[in-house]
Amino acid sequence: MTTAIDRLRDWLAEIADLGDVTHLLEWDQQTMMPARGAAGRAEALATVRRVSHEKFASAQTGKLLEAAGAALDGADPGGDEAALVRVAARRWEKARRVPIELAAARAKAASLGQEAWREARARSDFAAFVPYLERNLELARRYVECFDEFDCPYDVLLDDYEPGMRTATVTALFAQLKSELIPLIGTLSDHRDRVDAACLHGSFPAAQQRELAVAVVRLMGYDPAAWRMDTAVHPFATSFGHQDVRITTRWDESYFPAALFGAMHECGHGLYEAGIDGALQRTPLGHAESLAIHESQSRLWENMVGRGRAFSNVLAPLLARTFGGALAGLDPDTLYRAVNRVAPSFIRVEADEATYGMHIVLRFELEQQLIEGQLSIRELPEAWNARFKEYLGLDVPDDAHGVLQDVHWSSGSIGYFPTYALGNLIAGELWERVHVEHPDLDQHLEAGDLGPLREWLRESIHRHGAKFTMPELLERVVGDSIAVEPFVAYLKRKLSDVYGLRL
Amino acid sequence: MTTAIDRLRDWLAEIADLGDVTHLLEWDQQTMMPARGAAGRAEALATVRRVSHEKFASAQTGKLLEAAGAALDGADPGGDEAALVRVAARRWEKARRVPIELAAARAKAASLGQEAWREARARSDFAAFVPYLERNLELARRYVECFDEFDCPYDVLLDDYEPGMRTATVTALFAQLKSELIPLIGTLSDHRDRVDAACLHGSFPAAQQRELAVAVVRLMGYDPAAWRMDTAVHPFATSFGHQDVRITTRWDESYFPAALFGAMHECGHGLYEAGIDGALQRTPLGHAESLAIHESQSRLWENMVGRGRAFSNVLAPLLARTFGGALAGLDPDTLYRAVNRVAPSFIRVEADEATYGMHIVLRFELEQQLIEGQLSIRELPEAWNARFKEYLGLDVPDDAHGVLQDVHWSSGSIGYFPTYALGNLIAGELWERVHVEHPDLDQHLEAGDLGPLREWLRESIHRHGAKFTMPELLERVVGDSIAVEPFVAYLKRKLSDVYGLRL
Repeated sequence: MTTAIDRLRDWLAEIADLGDVTHLLEWDQQTMMPARGAAGRAEALATVRRVSHEKFASAQTGKLLEAAGAALDGADPGGDEAALVRVAARRWEKARRVPIELAAARAKAASLGQEAWREARARSDFAAFVPYLERNLELARRYVECFDEFDCPYDVLLDDYEPGMRTATVTALFAQLKSELIPLIGTLSDHRDRVDAACLHGSFPAAQQRELAVAVVRLMGYDPAAWRMDTAVHPFATSFGHQDVRITTRWDESYFPAALFGAMHECGHGLYEAGIDGALQRTPLGHAESLAIHESQSRLWENMVGRGRAFSNVLAPLLARTFGGALAGLDPDTLYRAVNRVAPSFIRVEADEATYGMHIVLRFELEQQLIEGQLSIRELPEAWNARFKEYLGLDVPDDAHGVLQDVHWSSGSIGYFPTYALGNLIAGELWERVHVEHPDLDQHLEAGDLGPLREWLRESIHRHGAKFTMPELLERVVGDSIAVEPFVAYLKRKLSDVYGLRL
Repeated sequence: MTTAIDRLRDWLAEIADLGDVTHLLEWDQQTMMPARGAAGRAEALATVRRVSHEKFASAQTGKLLEAAGAALDGADPGGDEAALVRVAARRWEKARRVPIELAAARAKAASLGQEAWREARARSDFAAFVPYLERNLELARRYVECFDEFDCPYDVLLDDYEPGMRTATVTALFAQLKSELIPLIGTLSDHRDRVDAACLHGSFPAAQQRELAVAVVRLMGYDPAAWRMDTAVHPFATSFGHQDVRITTRWDESYFPAALFGAMHECGHGLYEAGIDGALQRTPLGHAESLAIHESQSRLWENMVGRGRAFSNVLAPLLARTFGGALAGLDPDTLYRAVNRVAPSFIRVEADEATYGMHIVLRFELEQQLIEGQLSIRELPEAWNARFKEYLGLDVPDDAHGVLQDVHWSSGSIGYFPTYALGNLIAGELWERVHVEHPDLDQHLEAGDLGPLREWLRESIHRHGAKFTMPELLERVVGDSIAVEPFVAYLKRKLSDVYGLRL
């Protein structure tokens, strides 16, 4: 039995390595690469993608999978070996339908698109970005055409980020979420004077912000022997195995929460990758699979911990010590209320927890229209702005603050956005559950002791890598499927506290 | 005709991309990677090497080469297409003899060896490094066994760094070089009091050193849009195509020449890669091939420009402005004489131009003994120290200052060292030639105008990439083969000036 599994494992180990190589090429492009390296980088990414796809989508993978499947007969379906075969087989069934040239073309267009986006965003010049977005969209449509079993084209794309998830399920969840968020946002804007966020604005030198961010992520579990933190225009986390985790943040010298909570967010992602069992490394199980679960980790650390009442007792004195000046003697309650102020704003990654969901709903709706041809790229900025006004009541001043703000479409990641809001919902369920299992969790957080939370997450979620699908994992951990209620209950509880209202 | 060449070019473009990917993996390992990433990195490097070797060493490459060769019939043998076929065919003839597993094993051992070396060097612990060096040496011997046409085993290794060069030729050149250097070093140590190098020592904060280094490499042609400069334990230069050049340096806060001249050295390498014709990118001609020519560029910029009398007129005021203090009002003549002081020392990369050659001769002799089994690894430190005493008159205090100082053996690069001294010889020939073609060159250097030199080097050497072998290139540029005399004449001229002697 071992032999067939081992042969499959060896074959897939090289494909896992090539995946990590891709991650490094992308990490370097976004953090280190000089601008003129872009053309060469796009070629390198396309080549690695081509080689990797050719290997993985081959008949050889199919044969090895079949032999390993046969050898498994009777093995524990919850074991690593069964999961290895199951997950690899599912991915292979998708990959083998995609021509090598299409896979390579998507990688190249993604790399070139990101460089074009960076420049277009800096100049708020949507027209300059149009050809790149058109190319990505055309390739996404060709990708969809490789498949035939789906309810709608968007299903195919969504499945790449959230395996097994259907557009109809997301639509239903988002309808419920919208019906909760819209009135909540309305109520809170009637009481906007109740919360003062002045302490968040001022002059915060990047070097000191970096010190602060490092101090906080070290409390979370960031370890310089196995991690790095760098600067990126659009912050992200990645990893090349569990012993080499890279996170990024950006520095706004007039507003510290962007970097601080951004770093906590990316460190949340990083802890997931760092927590995956060593035994799963260099297999298809060695990275997390569900992006919704991934995002649940980042959002939980960013918002439920970082913007929570308990941890404000740690952050307030740390901010006071780091920046002094107007923040000297910063009160935890003042900080807690300020960072939870609800106010519609333009930039998704800086949105508060209540309006955030609406940013996602908007993108989810627009990208479905794009992929189904109901909306042309030329019409996209206008459609964005109109829907933004409808959902958040603001007039978008320029495309840099609107349709150009996110990297995703530039890199061909269409179908990715909904996982952000799904991540919030899952975080709500996990947050409820961890408090049941650790009734004294808040005391630990208040003392800056983040170990119990991290270890619970590692034990419940991280260590499994890609072994379980999102529904399987939720069933194991919270005994339920994905749901809107726990997140909304958490949000209303917190905002009632912040605003002194009964929401 | 175009079709067969184009098919070959497309095939080789992917192999060139995989080469650049390898360079990025190595660059990241030496500049950015957290320590615990080492095991994963070794696997990734082995996989990329395996994939690339499998592709290049295949029968398919042979067929494409044959078809392209036939299609070339009658084409200009000096043209890009003929060179492409010629260079690729030569490399393929070597590659196809090497088993895939051996190529991958060498890449993995090189990566692991470097990490082990970094730690062993920090602790001056040769014993901890022994197993890694043994592995590299064993793999180098197995590599040699793949070939049968050579005069001695070392020829095979040397040929990888300096195509076509024979051990016997190097031995003859080095014998002549030794016969010049040993008496020269002896004479100068009798007059050591004539030069005072006190101005080089003091307190030089790394941040200011970085500013200085950037200012100087920018004069040379470093362009932030297409280059980066980072920190590395063992400085090096690399590139992923001519539009993404990476150089490194290290900061000794008590001795500024290490970083300054190190940066000029690596920038010299970088200018070579940056100067290669765009049309040769993503082909086997797109990187330089002869490491001796490569080293001639770095040494020429580091020593003939950087430590030259003319450019001291630029460096002295720059140093005075950057560091002030004891260097305020630094006199160009004082600086020029200090940086050219000849004194035996332990570390090769910090050696003066006269003793440098002896560091190389020592390594060349020892690595031949290692590869031929005349010397065991356990005996290596003792052999190193004995020969060091013989050639340079010093007692090596510990292995960090002796046998452990260089990265090369840790990464399996055996046969690489001689190219450094050959580079000095070539630099001597080029320096002579450029002064014939640009009689006013020194006035330009004195004014900080490094453009004419850079453009001459680009036009004569850089743009050709790997089109010509080292002897072909020298014949084109200086009308001669590699020779000891011009370098020795240059050195004696300069040191006569510095010491006020007739050497």
